[in-house]
Amino acid sequence: MRPKIYLFGDSITELSFGEGGWGASLANHFSRSADVVLRGYSGYNTRWALKVIDKVFFPADEPLAVTVFFGANDACLPDRYGAFQHVPVDEYKQNLHSIVCFLKRRWPTTHVVLITPPPIDEAARLLNPYAENKLGLPERTNEAAGAYAKACLSVASECEAPAVDLWTKMQQFPGWQTAFLSDGLHLTQGGNRIVFEEVIGKLKEDGLSLETLPVDLPLFTDIDPNDPLKAFGN
Amino acid sequence: MRPKIYLFGDSITELSFGEGGWGASLANHFSRSADVVLRGYSGYNTRWALKVIDKVFFPADEPLAVTVFFGANDACLPDRYGAFQHVPVDEYKQNLHSIVCFLKRRWPTTHVVLITPPPIDEAARLLNPYAENKLGLPERTNEAAGAYAKACLSVASECEAPAVDLWTKMQQFPGWQTAFLSDGLHLTQGGNRIVFEEVIGKLKEDGLSLETLPVDLPLFTDIDPNDPLKAFGN
Repeated sequence: MRPKIYLFGDSITELSFGEGGWGASLANHFSRSADVVLRGYSGYNTRWALKVIDKVFFPADEPLAVTVFFGANDACLPDRYGAFQHVPVDEYKQNLHSIVCFLKRRWPTTHVVLITPPPIDEAARLLNPYAENKLGLPERTNEAAGAYAKACLSVASECEAPAVDLWTKMQQFPGWQTAFLSDGLHLTQGGNRIVFEEVIGKLKEDGLSLETLPVDLPLFTDIDPNDPLKAFGN
Repeated sequence: MRPKIYLFGDSITELSFGEGGWGASLANHFSRSADVVLRGYSGYNTRWALKVIDKVFFPADEPLAVTVFFGANDACLPDRYGAFQHVPVDEYKQNLHSIVCFLKRRWPTTHVVLITPPPIDEAARLLNPYAENKLGLPERTNEAAGAYAKACLSVASECEAPAVDLWTKMQQFPGWQTAFLSDGLHLTQGGNRIVFEEVIGKLKEDGLSLETLPVDLPLFTDIDPNDPLKAFGN
């Protein structure tokens, strides 16, 4: 059976098989060696994620790796229109810790990769067409997202899990606000590319790459044109 | 457990999670209701597919649906550089029949959707950089691909399985040679779009759509902002 890489997260995960999406790119990258399984839940924070985790991961279905990518919704401010998604940063940290522990307890050899929330472009959030914004203030700020990113990194360190510091990484590029974010929160193709490359990099550091993962059936280049059936044990 | 849709085929399937790919689009479409599982094997014909089918599909892993998309390699001409991939059309028909029977015998309720090979742009095949072409003639012709497409449709009819007649469908559009094919054989984003839409359509006719497939966990729109945890049975 091919090993599975689960992508567990919010809308940035759920949307990751859209055009140029980081999930689709992972599936394409591992097209002959691993199945990439989408478990993205738009709008979810870590509190809700913990409520459903038993229905997301089944005991018999041991993953090779899991990306855990929450925090963008937890970081909604408690006094703005996204307040019902808000989770205080201390609880976020505890919840994220519980998610990693749940996975590690069930499957000690599964690789868990944490991803911090992305930075926020507050100006673009004011144009969000999906919510009524009576206050005229952004429901997320970059500063708050940064606090959750920091908390995520600290959980990764406590759990000895690799982490992609997306919040910091993206802000290293001038113009990140529009190069990587389509609406101040979700990812452009460029933003998706960064997540893909960072995740591939972390998996590789953990020993999971095209070089190390076996291919389950003969590659075309391994088939002898003079005796093709030999490759199939004939 | 989420139901699974397997994509079984050659390189046009293996590449289907690339940018704008039909496989990625299917995974995106069913992001909350079905897992799309990639089983594409570049260069494979139906003879080789039959040799490996037992290692591709495991008895306990019943799929909701399977797309079977072979023929582009079988249709390589027997006297050109792709000859070792060639399978005579009568054997192709028999092999395809055996593949469908294998799936239907093992899982009588699994939906099997056949896809014919695409048309061939012979002029573009002459520019294929992956093979030495001493004869200076295309290794595939559109006429041959059409004969395999016809054989595929006849298997679909015998097996009472839905089929996407990609060969005919694409040629209904003027400029199909470059609009839908990137190298006279593989798909552009436009070509991928057609496969995606046709497959979605066949699945829908068979009763499999976003309207009929259950979502396993609460959608964001079903969560009450005044009492979010209610949606999670709290």
